[in-house]
Amino acid sequence: MNSSKIRVAIAGAAGKMGREAVTTFTGNDQFEVVGLLVRENGQADALLLSAGCPIFTNSDQLLTEVHPDIWIDFTDAESVQRHVDACITFGVRPVIGATGYGEDDLKRWDEACRTQEIGAIAAPNFALGALLMIRFAKEAARLFDSVEIIELHHDGKKDAPSGTAKRTAAAIMQERVEAAAELGSRQQLASFATGQAHEEDGARGYQLSGVPIHSIRLPGLVAHQEVIFGGSGETLTIRHDSVSRTSFMQGLQIACQRVMEIKGLVYGLENLLW
Amino acid sequence: MNSSKIRVAIAGAAGKMGREAVTTFTGNDQFEVVGLLVRENGQADALLLSAGCPIFTNSDQLLTEVHPDIWIDFTDAESVQRHVDACITFGVRPVIGATGYGEDDLKRWDEACRTQEIGAIAAPNFALGALLMIRFAKEAARLFDSVEIIELHHDGKKDAPSGTAKRTAAAIMQERVEAAAELGSRQQLASFATGQAHEEDGARGYQLSGVPIHSIRLPGLVAHQEVIFGGSGETLTIRHDSVSRTSFMQGLQIACQRVMEIKGLVYGLENLLW
Amino acid sequence: MNSSKIRVAIAGAAGKMGREAVTTFTGNDQFEVVGLLVRENGQADALLLSAGCPIFTNSDQLLTEVHPDIWIDFTDAESVQRHVDACITFGVRPVIGATGYGEDDLKRWDEACRTQEIGAIAAPNFALGALLMIRFAKEAARLFDSVEIIELHHDGKKDAPSGTAKRTAAAIMQERVEAAAELGSRQQLASFATGQAHEEDGARGYQLSGVPIHSIRLPGLVAHQEVIFGGSGETLTIRHDSVSRTSFMQGLQIACQRVMEIKGLVYGLENLLW
Amino acid sequence: MNSSKIRVAIAGAAGKMGREAVTTFTGNDQFEVVGLLVRENGQADALLLSAGCPIFTNSDQLLTEVHPDIWIDFTDAESVQRHVDACITFGVRPVIGATGYGEDDLKRWDEACRTQEIGAIAAPNFALGALLMIRFAKEAARLFDSVEIIELHHDGKKDAPSGTAKRTAAAIMQERVEAAAELGSRQQLASFATGQAHEEDGARGYQLSGVPIHSIRLPGLVAHQEVIFGGSGETLTIRHDSVSRTSFMQGLQIACQRVMEIKGLVYGLENLLW
Repeated sequence: MNSSKIRVAIAGAAGKMGREAVTTFTGNDQFEVVGLLVRENGQADALLLSAGCPIFTNSDQLLTEVHPDIWIDFTDAESVQRHVDACITFGVRPVIGATGYGEDDLKRWDEACRTQEIGAIAAPNFALGALLMIRFAKEAARLFDSVEIIELHHDGKKDAPSGTAKRTAAAIMQERVEAAAELGSRQQLASFATGQAHEEDGARGYQLSGVPIHSIRLPGLVAHQEVIFGGSGETLTIRHDSVSRTSFMQGLQIACQRVMEIKGLVYGLENLLW
Repeated sequence: MNSSKIRVAIAGAAGKMGREAVTTFTGNDQFEVVGLLVRENGQADALLLSAGCPIFTNSDQLLTEVHPDIWIDFTDAESVQRHVDACITFGVRPVIGATGYGEDDLKRWDEACRTQEIGAIAAPNFALGALLMIRFAKEAARLFDSVEIIELHHDGKKDAPSGTAKRTAAAIMQERVEAAAELGSRQQLASFATGQAHEEDGARGYQLSGVPIHSIRLPGLVAHQEVIFGGSGETLTIRHDSVSRTSFMQGLQIACQRVMEIKGLVYGLENLLW
Repeated sequence: MNSSKIRVAIAGAAGKMGREAVTTFTGNDQFEVVGLLVRENGQADALLLSAGCPIFTNSDQLLTEVHPDIWIDFTDAESVQRHVDACITFGVRPVIGATGYGEDDLKRWDEACRTQEIGAIAAPNFALGALLMIRFAKEAARLFDSVEIIELHHDGKKDAPSGTAKRTAAAIMQERVEAAAELGSRQQLASFATGQAHEEDGARGYQLSGVPIHSIRLPGLVAHQEVIFGGSGETLTIRHDSVSRTSFMQGLQIACQRVMEIKGLVYGLENLLW
Repeated sequence: MNSSKIRVAIAGAAGKMGREAVTTFTGNDQFEVVGLLVRENGQADALLLSAGCPIFTNSDQLLTEVHPDIWIDFTDAESVQRHVDACITFGVRPVIGATGYGEDDLKRWDEACRTQEIGAIAAPNFALGALLMIRFAKEAARLFDSVEIIELHHDGKKDAPSGTAKRTAAAIMQERVEAAAELGSRQQLASFATGQAHEEDGARGYQLSGVPIHSIRLPGLVAHQEVIFGGSGETLTIRHDSVSRTSFMQGLQIACQRVMEIKGLVYGLENLLW
């Protein structure tokens, strides 16, 4: 009997992340894939058909006909906002892997979810290792004053630094601000400003919140990051290596379990892991 | 006026760690070095004299004459037990960096400290980076089932694996046991037993509590460790590199601040950092 | 006009390596794929059909009907010997990526190729980075006495240490023997025997030709190796990371260019790169 | 009998490198330390006295009175040029570890040495591991089009990028130019120009000869460099870690052996190792 399974729909099912999600949830006892959403001109291939559920090109039709427990969204910046608004109206919990929304969207969704008494999760990264890296970096920042970030990605990546590197630097700065506040002064923060001489342009990286970030782009790389803390006579390095999209799937499953338990929107899966 | 400074004695002051401690505490406003202990045939050189305090070869004489607030012990397995017993009797707080004591000693010291209403700290490692590495390894073990440890040391190191590697494996196992207990079963633990075929002797390392440990010994190395967690499509690596004994000094200062605030013995500085 | 292209057949075309080869050579101006060999019960899917050439299940039929310039063999230990013998008889140059042959086979093939005045290449690894790693390790062994190998692979890999690690250790030992011979004595070689105390079983790895090899097996890893040389106050590390089978394809193309120019069999692509 | 030993003088003997050299050559059967040069106000401590030879503050006096076979120079930019000119006039072979000379000096010294029929060596780096790293980087550049350099040093280092990183990039560019010349065209070189979008200032490092260099500066680091080559599906990394000045001493000894055999000046010890 399927009634105890969590019923999920997957939007953007024909994309790279969507296909991984179809494979992951189709073979999982806890979940039942009840509907897929693809583009107008999308084509159902063997992998999508293997889910054994209806395939839609209209989001409202999917919501009305199958009314899933959860809507996993791996579509794009153009569609995600409309989808999530509709989901919440239908009482369907969104788990948002797409990007392109803003602070305002998050705030509106949070309020709508609380009215409907359902949960929602928006996460820029579902890889557990990346979430732990950011968490550990935040903790280490309390004991180490000096830190730099090296992020290494395949040469097809267009932006530098990566979003994960920026979020890591922001987490480190947040910890420093909190630590300084506890000390009752800005004394500690001031020490992060450093003066270096004879530096060639760019050699010392991009400075974000006092944290230098260095971006390497090479073929043969996938997605990697090192956070290096330096203290007297020692360094502590936290490194995450992601070699395939499957690294997102364990985190996505955890998100789908936790979204059933919460009310309102949580931004960042790291806030639900501990 | 010196009355508000914490008064420390350093035993084993002529050894490598002791000398670092003399340098560290002599130049620190919060502390005053009030006595050094060296061996019978020990010789006072310029560094020891720079502390500007009496140098003793008899521990009881030091305790009686200068009665320090804290006794930092970097002596050896033969002396440390006698020293610490005497310290506590005199109401002096021991901060123990020497090794060679056992569970029984720790228990006896804890009880004696509680009677005297003073604190004591025994720590096999004072390097903050190493303590964070073990802490992070313990936390990551809750989300990752698979882990291996690589520890790399100079070729003069006689034992393998290192004590830090063993403590890391023990922390990981402890986390697994706790996680399994929460799950109400031993189901998870069982999954750590793995069967591999065609393995040459030693290739897969030393197995401690289900964690393979690999020990590299080469000239040019100092003291390094990597803990690598593996999950689907990703790895998370925590690495500590120690290149000089100065890495212990920040942790030692924190220990000397905290030992003034606690009652009874705490084993492991990591238990006082957060 | 296609007459100037090198005409290749691919045996084991339906396997993982074979499929990569089909993709690589189909889209390359220098080569023309003229025949594929699959198993009896093999099925031709879209990728194999995209090569636009006949697909065979009988190797002699392929050789007779299309008579390629080169036979790329990614079949298995059972088939490779029979295939290569037949190739050479037909005057077709074998490029052998399959394993399972022995010294005797290599010798027989070399002689047969010289009689036929054609080239042949057998290579256990076509990844250029891996070949450079082994070459550099051999060179560094002349200046550094101490070295250890760490190889890291996905947890599905059955054997440990890896073949690449063993070949690296063999290359290092060969260099040591040559260096010792130049010195006119065995003096240097003797220094590689080391005595270590207090070692737990396996901690110091598998000893091959005096080189300790440590094998890490974790999910999330693909295929990686580090060769670490230690000297006074310094270490030199050579690391190769392979994240996909595409790393073999550039080397395979070079092999197919070079096999047209040589007479007799060359074992190891590293011997043709410089 | 000492007559077969190579007689060395050490200039800048009281500096950090000079002291290492005194220790190294005093305890070596092949060499005899016959004179030390220190500053006017320099003081002879136990280490310098342990060399058991006269200590001078005037370079000409040292050259006249002890006439060494080799003059090792670890002085500064102000003194090194005058010293080396004088050495060659006296027929004494200079081994130059100091920096601050230019192309013109090297040319003048080379000619003077050839006239005198003696050798000279000027080397910005004596660490064998660093020399091998540069050599391997040059070789790998022939097979890999894409490369980036990460250099990591203690936070006291004033310049960025390091001299070693710049020499590595220059060696890579030299190899590319040679490879392009062999191909009879500039076709290959052109491919190194890359266009990246959405890059924050500095994120992609300092560009030298088409090689991005990233400089990390943290306490707890000593002197480290990684050269990462990227190809299809693979990366090859060459890393050098130097943790103490002793890493220079083996190379310095080799330089002192080889300078006895050559005529004229050789710049870069790497040109004498193979």
